[in-house]
Amino acid sequence: GNDPETVVVSAALTGALTTREQCPAIPYTPTEIAEEAAAAREAGAAVAHIHARTAEGAPTFDVDTYQEIHDAVRDRTDIVLNFSTGAIDVPLEDRLEYVQSVGPEVAALNMGSMNYAKYSDSREDYVFDMIFENPFSEIRDLLAGMNEAGVTPELECFDTGHVGNTRPLLKEGVLERPFHVSLIMGVLGGIPATVENLVHQVRQLPDDSTWQVIGISQDQWPLASAAAAMGGNVRVGLEDNFYRPNGEMAESNAELVEDAVELVRTVGREPATPDEAREILGVER
Amino acid sequence: GNDPETVVVSAALTGALTTREQCPAIPYTPTEIAEEAAAAREAGAAVAHIHARTAEGAPTFDVDTYQEIHDAVRDRTDIVLNFSTGAIDVPLEDRLEYVQSVGPEVAALNMGSMNYAKYSDSREDYVFDMIFENPFSEIRDLLAGMNEAGVTPELECFDTGHVGNTRPLLKEGVLERPFHVSLIMGVLGGIPATVENLVHQVRQLPDDSTWQVIGISQDQWPLASAAAAMGGNVRVGLEDNFYRPNGEMAESNAELVEDAVELVRTVGREPATPDEAREILGVER
Amino acid sequence: GNDPETVVVSAALTGALTTREQCPAIPYTPTEIAEEAAAAREAGAAVAHIHARTAEGAPTFDVDTYQEIHDAVRDRTDIVLNFSTGAIDVPLEDRLEYVQSVGPEVAALNMGSMNYAKYSDSREDYVFDMIFENPFSEIRDLLAGMNEAGVTPELECFDTGHVGNTRPLLKEGVLERPFHVSLIMGVLGGIPATVENLVHQVRQLPDDSTWQVIGISQDQWPLASAAAAMGGNVRVGLEDNFYRPNGEMAESNAELVEDAVELVRTVGREPATPDEAREILGVER
Amino acid sequence: GNDPETVVVSAALTGALTTREQCPAIPYTPTEIAEEAAAAREAGAAVAHIHARTAEGAPTFDVDTYQEIHDAVRDRTDIVLNFSTGAIDVPLEDRLEYVQSVGPEVAALNMGSMNYAKYSDSREDYVFDMIFENPFSEIRDLLAGMNEAGVTPELECFDTGHVGNTRPLLKEGVLERPFHVSLIMGVLGGIPATVENLVHQVRQLPDDSTWQVIGISQDQWPLASAAAAMGGNVRVGLEDNFYRPNGEMAESNAELVEDAVELVRTVGREPATPDEAREILGVER
Ligand SMILES: [Zn+2]
Ligand SMILES: [Zn+2]
Ligand SMILES: [Zn+2]
Ligand SMILES: [Zn+2]
Repeated sequence: GNDPETVVVSAALTGALTTREQCPAIPYTPTEIAEEAAAAREAGAAVAHIHARTAEGAPTFDVDTYQEIHDAVRDRTDIVLNFSTGAIDVPLEDRLEYVQSVGPEVAALNMGSMNYAKYSDSREDYVFDMIFENPFSEIRDLLAGMNEAGVTPELECFDTGHVGNTRPLLKEGVLERPFHVSLIMGVLGGIPATVENLVHQVRQLPDDSTWQVIGISQDQWPLASAAAAMGGNVRVGLEDNFYRPNGEMAESNAELVEDAVELVRTVGREPATPDEAREILGVER
Repeated sequence: GNDPETVVVSAALTGALTTREQCPAIPYTPTEIAEEAAAAREAGAAVAHIHARTAEGAPTFDVDTYQEIHDAVRDRTDIVLNFSTGAIDVPLEDRLEYVQSVGPEVAALNMGSMNYAKYSDSREDYVFDMIFENPFSEIRDLLAGMNEAGVTPELECFDTGHVGNTRPLLKEGVLERPFHVSLIMGVLGGIPATVENLVHQVRQLPDDSTWQVIGISQDQWPLASAAAAMGGNVRVGLEDNFYRPNGEMAESNAELVEDAVELVRTVGREPATPDEAREILGVER
Repeated sequence: GNDPETVVVSAALTGALTTREQCPAIPYTPTEIAEEAAAAREAGAAVAHIHARTAEGAPTFDVDTYQEIHDAVRDRTDIVLNFSTGAIDVPLEDRLEYVQSVGPEVAALNMGSMNYAKYSDSREDYVFDMIFENPFSEIRDLLAGMNEAGVTPELECFDTGHVGNTRPLLKEGVLERPFHVSLIMGVLGGIPATVENLVHQVRQLPDDSTWQVIGISQDQWPLASAAAAMGGNVRVGLEDNFYRPNGEMAESNAELVEDAVELVRTVGREPATPDEAREILGVER
Repeated sequence: GNDPETVVVSAALTGALTTREQCPAIPYTPTEIAEEAAAAREAGAAVAHIHARTAEGAPTFDVDTYQEIHDAVRDRTDIVLNFSTGAIDVPLEDRLEYVQSVGPEVAALNMGSMNYAKYSDSREDYVFDMIFENPFSEIRDLLAGMNEAGVTPELECFDTGHVGNTRPLLKEGVLERPFHVSLIMGVLGGIPATVENLVHQVRQLPDDSTWQVIGISQDQWPLASAAAAMGGNVRVGLEDNFYRPNGEMAESNAELVEDAVELVRTVGREPATPDEAREILGVER
């Protein structure tokens, strides 16, 4: 389970959908990503969650790019490396190959299907309206691939059913306890971003689980505060949210991590170091 | 909202996936469906939820078949008519046309996407592993079509996010309050079937909503009891579950309705008549 | 913990405050109590919760009367014997002596203080407005006395804090796990009688606890249904409520037990026998 | 209801039970209390919750002392004045007289009875073990007295039943909505200090209520963070807790208010001014 004294702060450095037009601080290249990872580590982050991008910012699943990111980050800092495996309309093999070849310590894994949408109140229309497809067959194959490669899965749960989806995977033996869970809140299509819903999601987890909250956009800060108050871990970063608690756009991932660290200290906890995070998550470098 | 004194008991007579090989009592033809509807009404059901089938039991979206069902049921009984619009891999237009042509009082509408799976502990494998796709674009079009035809939508919510999906639809104006909600519990991929989860789902609803619980397979009875205790409505029927509380396979939908009525009376409530249900749901015959 | 297949149905035969003017079926004398216990057992109760009364119906803490009750019940039936220790303004010693001398299998124990009141909407006044005083010093002494006598304590919790009060008692070593808990709901001054509150109370308990719900007056039946649906045990009886689910006044405790058994079966469970209850509660005859 | 943008930060300056031996910064005299109130206001507090003390620190219910406090605070700052009415073994009249004579804007009112205890794990004994007696008769008389004097009641709820106790008081007409509620958490005898319990308590309140959390001792900071995240108000101050989030003993109430303001800003909210608090609470100066 989580540690009552320390909080594992993760930094989701770049994501796949955001662009520099929206937020100039978003890193694209391996070098930029490594810079941001090192600065986030300095600010108090223990884990860097990473998606690869082309130099123009498009998502890529290229093994070499992921290897370059890995090496560039490792040259600069001891932060825990966490790779995404999520994408819409990308074959499973492409999302697994770089995980197995490059071997991050942790890889995130989406635990179910859902609508993945965004509605603009001002435009009165959907900004996007997609279906995020993650059938059991793919979840199982990703887990099996990670097990083979010695990569720890982080279970990304966007709703209560996604937590329930662990049941058959445990029975099949591709998933083992303790679970390491991300509770994503505030994606339209998934569970709404309220503290009550966070409490509900945490109650679904076995007691030996570790968990963090991932609040999307403006809801990130109150959810992170509530999670820190509940003994959970927190994720911030430009993948999830561009804005600091005071409403200003962040000029770097490190600024968001600094805000998270301040928040963590207001509840009397301290940010975990990467090695403390490794112990909490049970991963080896 | 719901009525504290009476419970609207719905009977889901046939469904689309179940077969007579599994349970001989499942009705296929319009005549059989009307027989079951009339017997369910006698036993205490106020609403019949219906999927059309061919004579061989395959799902069909044929307008004439739905019209025949409508007429045969109406000849026999005053039960509220509720048609399904859910299906996997069937175009939206096909699922809307019969609703608009035939005009049931209520039509069910799935409020989001999810995995729709079943895992067999004994076989150690998935019996099925599908993605139930209901993007916002389709939900919106179905709502608009029902509004046009004067059919009351029943919002089928399989998880907490599905309830949250009402938000943009309200903003767009295709959905209006009060909501009439079915809380489906126990489909693998959706919210697990626990009383705690039922309480959580009910809390997501605006106070003026009406709601019923739909528990899948063996979890149906405890969820129906809890719903009746909470002031909710209940659905039973061969679409959702073949077995009576004592473990015996039902020989008709009416038997399951009888069990539901007995359950309703153990909490001191009475089954609503179809006309009482119309008043509670705000529908006109 | 509780048993998923069976429900321990307790019958609270008489209480201390109710009178035959209110409900003619209330037993007063040891013989009457034993009759009611035997009939309740026939109807499906596994436990009889008993307060002693004088022949005129006043509460008494007389050791001989409790011994007579014990012997008369034991002559008639194998039901589990559970004695109350609760009272307002009666010295602790008087409430402990008969427990230690007579040695019932279980004795109930109030876990905290609270207002204990009743408000009449029609009279627009309080029917009674008392303070139910149960300081830690008394709880501790009662537990120590029961431990000494080999009597299993049933922890009566009227609010969330009462469950929390187990903490220091565990530390002191006068209380041990597993807990056997009664969740009393609907006394004015304690937690209100809602299914949501029942779910909340159950979540406070360690997983290895057994628990039953005790709903006061008209709220008893929906709470019992919800408890049965949640895997809990249920208590009915004239101490708590005079009325059957259909609104008629009960003519015996056995009638209320019959209604409870019917309710238990609607969720697919069976009433436990006294010996099954002993196994679940970990008590020896 | 509460304001989503601003947080009413209350400072409980002194209390009745704490001593300067435990924490040297605790103010006793009217002048000291006014100093602390003014500094707390500078730091961001909008409300000062006050108990009168003799020069030696003993609790007093003397009207003149409360008047001196009132005048000294009013000379120094525009902070909202909130007087306690809580005490153990002090007659009701004494606790009401100064409220009616001096006329603070708000007076706190305990909504039920409970054990009020503290257990020392190190000493393995109770530091104190009292019964906090607040029968309905006294609550009603305090409310009636406040209504007469135009003082707004703050309903102090230590458990779920205390919130439920509003029901008969509403019926009697001595209490009106909207409620202004303090949710006290972490007193041994009352509801334990968890975020889950806070969420549960907030759900009991009518939607138009305002509420703050009062966390006792080391649990204050996480509960305040969770409350701020949930849209609630927060109380800090030497009555409730001596220690800052970093574990150091506070050298003034203002230091604790500064920590609270920082916490409030980490969730993107701002502290309310006293006049903003008056508007939120519906009180007039
Ligand atoms: Zn990601
Ligand atoms: Zn259907
Ligand atoms: Zn009793
Ligand atoms: Zn105070």
